[in-house]
Amino acid sequence: MQRIVVLAGGVGGARFLRGLRSAVPEAEITVIGNTGDDIHLFGLKVCPDLDTVMYTLGGGINEAQGWGRADESFTVKEELAAYGVGPEWFGLGDRDFATHIVRTQMLAAGYPLSEVTEALCARWRPGVRLLPMTDDRVETHVAVDLDGERKAVHFQEYWVRLRASVDAHAVVPVGAEQATPAPGVLDAIAAADVVLFPPSNPVVSVGTILAVPGVREAIAEAGVPVIGLSPIVGDAPVHGMADKMLAAIGVRSTAAAVAQHYGSGLLDGWLVDTTDAATVREVEEAGIRCVAVPLMMTSEEATARMADEALALAAEVGA
Amino acid sequence: MQRIVVLAGGVGGARFLRGLRSAVPEAEITVIGNTGDDIHLFGLKVCPDLDTVMYTLGGGINEAQGWGRADESFTVKEELAAYGVGPEWFGLGDRDFATHIVRTQMLAAGYPLSEVTEALCARWRPGVRLLPMTDDRVETHVAVDLDGERKAVHFQEYWVRLRASVDAHAVVPVGAEQATPAPGVLDAIAAADVVLFPPSNPVVSVGTILAVPGVREAIAEAGVPVIGLSPIVGDAPVHGMADKMLAAIGVRSTAAAVAQHYGSGLLDGWLVDTTDAATVREVEEAGIRCVAVPLMMTSEEATARMADEALALAAEVGA
Repeated sequence: MQRIVVLAGGVGGARFLRGLRSAVPEAEITVIGNTGDDIHLFGLKVCPDLDTVMYTLGGGINEAQGWGRADESFTVKEELAAYGVGPEWFGLGDRDFATHIVRTQMLAAGYPLSEVTEALCARWRPGVRLLPMTDDRVETHVAVDLDGERKAVHFQEYWVRLRASVDAHAVVPVGAEQATPAPGVLDAIAAADVVLFPPSNPVVSVGTILAVPGVREAIAEAGVPVIGLSPIVGDAPVHGMADKMLAAIGVRSTAAAVAQHYGSGLLDGWLVDTTDAATVREVEEAGIRCVAVPLMMTSEEATARMADEALALAAEVGA
Repeated sequence: MQRIVVLAGGVGGARFLRGLRSAVPEAEITVIGNTGDDIHLFGLKVCPDLDTVMYTLGGGINEAQGWGRADESFTVKEELAAYGVGPEWFGLGDRDFATHIVRTQMLAAGYPLSEVTEALCARWRPGVRLLPMTDDRVETHVAVDLDGERKAVHFQEYWVRLRASVDAHAVVPVGAEQATPAPGVLDAIAAADVVLFPPSNPVVSVGTILAVPGVREAIAEAGVPVIGLSPIVGDAPVHGMADKMLAAIGVRSTAAAVAQHYGSGLLDGWLVDTTDAATVREVEEAGIRCVAVPLMMTSEEATARMADEALALAAEVGA
């Protein structure tokens, strides 16, 4: 049985995982989820990326939106606003609230986030093992200029409230340096046959996971193929505003630049979209095997083919 | 301007208050609310009696039910149940959840319950000053025989889950002895022109408020008329299951017995329903002025007439 470890962010990672699960239904898939975008709202612990993976694979996602629950209502949020309590810019629905209430209660009772996530997954049965990257608190902050001042704002505030409309000058996963990988993370990497970086945000999703001390080293030392799929197609992010994040760390928004950012010390193979076939040579010159295939996740079938391509590339570089 | 202090429980107290406010719109009404039925659910602090008063006077109550919000939905609760998280027997609706989230956040931030209640009332504008009896934690427990064992259960569990279907052997307001009246409570009593006991539960509502050290003494020493309205009509509670609670403390479920339970040291006047006109003499022999008037709160107008009768009796005994 093939053991696959995937480092996943939110929407892009979750959709890729659905394709991967469909491509290799017998594989044992461990997902290491980003928790740097976690936020406390209304006294509740919200884990947007973990929930997006859980809801997407568990059949509860709002498909059109990519995050949040299907058939959602916003009564609690409206009532909170009637009390003058916000923020109003974060779309917490009634169904979603229940997840955060359960999580917050379990955390308050002393359970680590990894056990809480397992308990929540007992309902959703995502068909993968979902692990938070760490049980410690890591919070991605973004440095921006607002009202004439340089300020650090929570990633969600940058992403959701400001919609990345201002330039990011720095991205800091606060707490990452002191964090330790959650139980199971390093073991899963050590036991993996292949490690995949889905087309998630290379800075605030995959990058944050790699910032947890020990994770990058474990992947480099596992001695198994590490294959990534470019989130940049034709010099623009397929989903979200990854270009803004790349600019903040001085990386060009191209498929080749992202591959080189990960680097040949970490990455063995890289899939770029057929649109970017011209960049294959640049990536290969950087010591990373590169193939151009269609990378648009237009359907579960198209995504499954992307997963197949990634695993084929893994087999090739591992041979 | 007449200053009226009312010791209120939930449904009965709230409905009486609406009639009182309508009867004397110019009066300054301070409500001392019972908090002994407060409960923590899903990590949230729920204050059923305070909320019933706030929603009823603020126009947000579910009229038919007498508690909870009008036009309520139960999405969060259903989702919690899908996670296997209960209790399912307590009907927390989505709109109601928002109140408890705001309250819990403010308490966690260090605000005392009295200030939290004031903040919540800024939205509801109940037209009265609503004070919790205490900022300290008091929790009414009921001793019952369950599964062959004597157990103490939370009042809400007795009332809502068990629907008072088993005998109560004792009622204990845990924490009351160590509690101190909330800011404003003793001052309001000292400044009152009249103190009213609405037709609330004499044991777990009014009785719990009186159990906070200092409250009973302040009322007795205020030197103003103290008038009660019987919650028992024709030997049965008008609302709820007060008879069960009275039995637990060895008081018969009659209008006269409740008056004598409060006692002439506290109570100056007592209104019984016309149905119970025959008991007037028994109450008066106990040293409490008693009048029989219609006590069914069938409408706001009928309730306003009850309030008028109570104030008329106050004027009479105070003369």
